[in-house]
Amino acid sequence: MALSFTLEQLAAEIGGTFTGDGSIALTGLSPLDAAVEGQLTFLTNPKYAKMAETTQASAILTEKPLQGVPKPFLLVSNPYAKLPRIIQLFHPAIKADPGIQEGAWVHPKATVDSSATIYPGVAVGKGAKVGARSILYPGVFLGAEAVVGEDCILYSNVTVREKCCLGNRVILQPGVVIGGDGFGFAPDKGTYEKFPQVGNVVLDDDVEIGANTCVDRAALGSTRIGKGTKIDNLVMVAHNVVIGENTIIVSQVGISGSTHVGNNVIMAGQVGLAGHLKIGDRVILAARTGVMEDIPEPGIYWGAPSSPMAVEMKNVAAYRQLPDLVKRLRRLEKVIEKLGKREEA
Amino acid sequence: MALSFTLEQLAAEIGGTFTGDGSIALTGLSPLDAAVEGQLTFLTNPKYAKMAETTQASAILTEKPLQGVPKPFLLVSNPYAKLPRIIQLFHPAIKADPGIQEGAWVHPKATVDSSATIYPGVAVGKGAKVGARSILYPGVFLGAEAVVGEDCILYSNVTVREKCCLGNRVILQPGVVIGGDGFGFAPDKGTYEKFPQVGNVVLDDDVEIGANTCVDRAALGSTRIGKGTKIDNLVMVAHNVVIGENTIIVSQVGISGSTHVGNNVIMAGQVGLAGHLKIGDRVILAARTGVMEDIPEPGIYWGAPSSPMAVEMKNVAAYRQLPDLVKRLRRLEKVIEKLGKREEA
Amino acid sequence: MALSFTLEQLAAEIGGTFTGDGSIALTGLSPLDAAVEGQLTFLTNPKYAKMAETTQASAILTEKPLQGVPKPFLLVSNPYAKLPRIIQLFHPAIKADPGIQEGAWVHPKATVDSSATIYPGVAVGKGAKVGARSILYPGVFLGAEAVVGEDCILYSNVTVREKCCLGNRVILQPGVVIGGDGFGFAPDKGTYEKFPQVGNVVLDDDVEIGANTCVDRAALGSTRIGKGTKIDNLVMVAHNVVIGENTIIVSQVGISGSTHVGNNVIMAGQVGLAGHLKIGDRVILAARTGVMEDIPEPGIYWGAPSSPMAVEMKNVAAYRQLPDLVKRLRRLEKVIEKLGKREEA
Repeated sequence: MALSFTLEQLAAEIGGTFTGDGSIALTGLSPLDAAVEGQLTFLTNPKYAKMAETTQASAILTEKPLQGVPKPFLLVSNPYAKLPRIIQLFHPAIKADPGIQEGAWVHPKATVDSSATIYPGVAVGKGAKVGARSILYPGVFLGAEAVVGEDCILYSNVTVREKCCLGNRVILQPGVVIGGDGFGFAPDKGTYEKFPQVGNVVLDDDVEIGANTCVDRAALGSTRIGKGTKIDNLVMVAHNVVIGENTIIVSQVGISGSTHVGNNVIMAGQVGLAGHLKIGDRVILAARTGVMEDIPEPGIYWGAPSSPMAVEMKNVAAYRQLPDLVKRLRRLEKVIEKLGKREEA
Repeated sequence: MALSFTLEQLAAEIGGTFTGDGSIALTGLSPLDAAVEGQLTFLTNPKYAKMAETTQASAILTEKPLQGVPKPFLLVSNPYAKLPRIIQLFHPAIKADPGIQEGAWVHPKATVDSSATIYPGVAVGKGAKVGARSILYPGVFLGAEAVVGEDCILYSNVTVREKCCLGNRVILQPGVVIGGDGFGFAPDKGTYEKFPQVGNVVLDDDVEIGANTCVDRAALGSTRIGKGTKIDNLVMVAHNVVIGENTIIVSQVGISGSTHVGNNVIMAGQVGLAGHLKIGDRVILAARTGVMEDIPEPGIYWGAPSSPMAVEMKNVAAYRQLPDLVKRLRRLEKVIEKLGKREEA
Repeated sequence: MALSFTLEQLAAEIGGTFTGDGSIALTGLSPLDAAVEGQLTFLTNPKYAKMAETTQASAILTEKPLQGVPKPFLLVSNPYAKLPRIIQLFHPAIKADPGIQEGAWVHPKATVDSSATIYPGVAVGKGAKVGARSILYPGVFLGAEAVVGEDCILYSNVTVREKCCLGNRVILQPGVVIGGDGFGFAPDKGTYEKFPQVGNVVLDDDVEIGANTCVDRAALGSTRIGKGTKIDNLVMVAHNVVIGENTIIVSQVGISGSTHVGNNVIMAGQVGLAGHLKIGDRVILAARTGVMEDIPEPGIYWGAPSSPMAVEMKNVAAYRQLPDLVKRLRRLEKVIEKLGKREEA
């Protein structure tokens, strides 16, 4: 049963205006090429204006009326910024079911707010705390003395091991592991002795972490991720790493132990960082960059070992001419050899 | 208790013939160097013919009798193709235990076929469906309105979040996450606002996905994986990616958002693809290739950024001579300098 | 409630001596820059001696008294080696709760030692065995006939599929998957047929495996990891791989099928190995090395394709001068061209 809103209702919701018949019912939002009759579509990038002429949608969200497109428009100054609100209208959040449901195991010495939802198959350890309105899906494990703040969502099969702390509005996608032991082993005559990992992980407010990503607990002290930082799937954050606020880390990145990352940093996919580094604020690392030294200055970096983007682009361009350079060098060598012989003659 | 078959029985099962005593009992299948007395072994690659002379096996599956090897042979025209059947004989699939077992939680509004097996510790959400003969191992979570087709196997701790759809004969190895939120955040004055991810994931028939691999749900619409495609462990498939049929994706590959991959593509391990790309049918990407542009044409590609294989092989060869090239260049510079001086003199 | 020890007690525990008042109470161990009053800190690397002058700690563990630092010292010959013992004193292991707890499902034909701890939400399959003092956290799944030795710890949401065997003192961090199917598919006219994966995984004593790492079961026979080997998070170990003893494998490494790795090998993060290779004892692979051929000899290797470290360092250095080499080559070409013209003239 799809939800339905009139064009007029949607305009009121997003503080916009409309053209045409405000009473038409819209039952969903879809991209220009996927929308069907009855749906709203959107043009947020002029590059796709041509597609607006053939879309099957019944109305178009855009900034200004489109010439030659005989459809009703939903008009607003920054249409892209309004998409989340419209999507939420058509797809309201799944209603939680507050309470500790049958089939969940909550230790008698744990504290769960009465407005939190604890689904079947969740295990909450001794002394752990779950804040107001937080939702723990089946298979979530909270270790002893772990703390989950308010309005958090922990999807299925998430682990938060003992003593780790989550702020408010933290979202952990399925399979995330918070507080696995750091990888610390002391070599001892050809074998390795485990170095105890007794610190924890602290995730600040508004952190989101992607599916199956791992954030290891500190050896001593805390591995920390700052407010508003967003991490994608399958990322590795090693022990004692400290990440600042509002930093973006894309899938399959690996950050080695004790490295400190600043605020508003962006790391694209498959980047790797060595340990004990300092990465400053507003650094951007292009996909698969390998960082072996500190990067104190803001800017865009690429390559392995990393260089400023402009430098690495030249390196890459030259690399791709390499076989040609080899030929040119060989030709020069021959010319020189001839010249040399002639001189001798 | 190992199963046992006579040489004659095995020949009948695979439509082959045999030499020697057809009544000997064989209790398992092992490679040439690991087989023990009483077992069948196989020679499917003439490279290993020498090993057939010393194997401890009691019979050898092969195409033609081997000169000088005094063992009974099990003969068939394409022995490699018969291995799966023989393995299945010796290792019949674990019998499922149809029904909803005690300790499983199935929402009263979910629909589970009576021939499906729901092990303890499984959680099936409101409106979810499980088809005939499918098996859900402990720790599997199906979100609201998720659909699992017929003859599927979902191993332990698999997540299929709300509204995601699996066809028939889909196999998900342990820890797979289907339908985690796509990584979509709109920057807003130095912080990030979550862009709702309200689409789903659709896996077509005969898809298999490896342990701890993640396939994110679409922002709007569907992330799709086509019929017969096989994906290995720890792979990242981002939101709105579309993958064709019979494509092979090896471990630790990452595919960024909205990229479209064709049919019969092969990606080796640790490959990375940028977002919004089109990869055509029958493209092969060698290990760790990094793709930053569309690849419309079939062929083998390598390198980061990627090139046709033959081109990148030359690049790599030249790269490995680089220090030598530097020396040769320096020598030329000196010769030229001398020539210049002589001219001046 | 933090534990507290006197300086004198700690000296006795580690076989060391102390200066100053042995009766002062110490309530924890922290690094020089994080320690607060009442805590013990440590100086194990002379590089940080300066920080000892300003630490807030109440006592310092070190080898010899530090000039000009007016604090009590805890003195011992190799202070670094004593840290694990001191940490264990301040952070005793969480006490297990032996027995099969309510909410765990143990098959009637499984065998669980009475000293083992089986938490709620664990599922133990038919014929599986759990040895003395082993601990299985919520969400662990043991398949049919899986074997867990003595003193093992399997953290939450770990999977050990059917017939896989763990030795003693094995530690599996959360989300580890042991025994997922190997990635084996036989091409058949444009589609793929699953090649049955009926082998298992054998982990020897003292193996530790990091969060969300996957070790696939063998097609036939066993995937093996030798005694004392330590593997970090998000690593991929493919079917029929054999890894020796006391080998270290850092996060996000991928090892392809049937590759054999020796003893005392070290692989840094994001390394990739092709299949069917032999890597000898005491080989060290630097971060992100890509190995395409056997490496029989001990030594340090780097690059993709890999080379001995000294060679690859020269390659990298030359790569980073490439744009300059292009310029120098162009200059030479111009000089030669001029010389040529002059000769002609």
